[in-house]
Amino acid sequence: MKKAIAIALLAAGATVAQHYSSGGELALPDYRKWVYLGSGVGMSYTETSRENPPFTNVFAEPAAYDKFMKTGTWPDKTVLIAEMRESATNLSINKSGRVQTAKVLAVEAEVKDSTKGGWAFYGFENGAQAGKLFPKSAACYSCHEEHAATDNTFVQFYPTLIETAKLHGTYKER
Amino acid sequence: MKKAIAIALLAAGATVAQHYSSGGELALPDYRKWVYLGSGVGMSYTETSRENPPFTNVFAEPAAYDKFMKTGTWPDKTVLIAEMRESATNLSINKSGRVQTAKVLAVEAEVKDSTKGGWAFYGFENGAQAGKLFPKSAACYSCHEEHAATDNTFVQFYPTLIETAKLHGTYKER
Repeated sequence: MKKAIAIALLAAGATVAQHYSSGGELALPDYRKWVYLGSGVGMSYTETSRENPPFTNVFAEPAAYDKFMKTGTWPDKTVLIAEMRESATNLSINKSGRVQTAKVLAVEAEVKDSTKGGWAFYGFENGAQAGKLFPKSAACYSCHEEHAATDNTFVQFYPTLIETAKLHGTYKER
Repeated sequence: MKKAIAIALLAAGATVAQHYSSGGELALPDYRKWVYLGSGVGMSYTETSRENPPFTNVFAEPAAYDKFMKTGTWPDKTVLIAEMRESATNLSINKSGRVQTAKVLAVEAEVKDSTKGGWAFYGFENGAQAGKLFPKSAACYSCHEEHAATDNTFVQFYPTLIETAKLHGTYKER
């Protein structure tokens, strides 16, 4: 029966990545098997430079990604994950530039959930498997609202989504 | 019938990503939906630095990835893709560091195929959908043989694979 439900959900294009605890925390999904949207290194919204700039890798739940590629917007229940990872140089035979190491510095989620008033942000601290909701006063909410190119998400930094969003008229130059 | 075969292949854990033309060229897979292994920026095996260092994003075919996570080595028919992508700074609200742009500079594949003598490398030039085999004299063959940590692949740069390879005794410090 469970299997039948799962197949029905998949057939309907529903996403099943979003699981909350009774306390409203978000369960950490197995996002490393999700669809990769892009990376930055040393990204900052101020003009600072860091000696060891971290990488930011962003992933989308596969069913939500498929829906975006058809419509240029994210379906309800979309989960995106941003993973901040330590960088290193002079590792093995790599002599310049930077590569990623095994050290994960932070994991955050952005979740679209109409039953919770739209987009919300969660932080997974120090390897936690449960993400805590950031309060609506946190900078992420206003920053995404003001600067995100498409549907509250930074599609301007996700190169494979840009063309689709432009085709569907959901891309704002920001 | 086709569906039954596909399901049987999936059940057997076989990878189905490898398709050759009659001329021996490799068909470009839809690798952006594959499992992301990691990125570097400005990677070089010599001590050079570039004004606009490109990103290198690496992807594994999902069934091959699952097999690696169980065994610490790649199954026959594994396909890995390296995508070189242009970087930019001062894009939108990002004021430092670098992000990825929509411009793909190069795509290369590394393929494990026992019917072709083991690992082989293919290059997809200028957006080509068919990859040409690099000759065995190309630098990629000797470099991977001498410097790759695990099974001819640069697992030292793929942080989520390192622990698995070490657990299975397939990791060489290089």
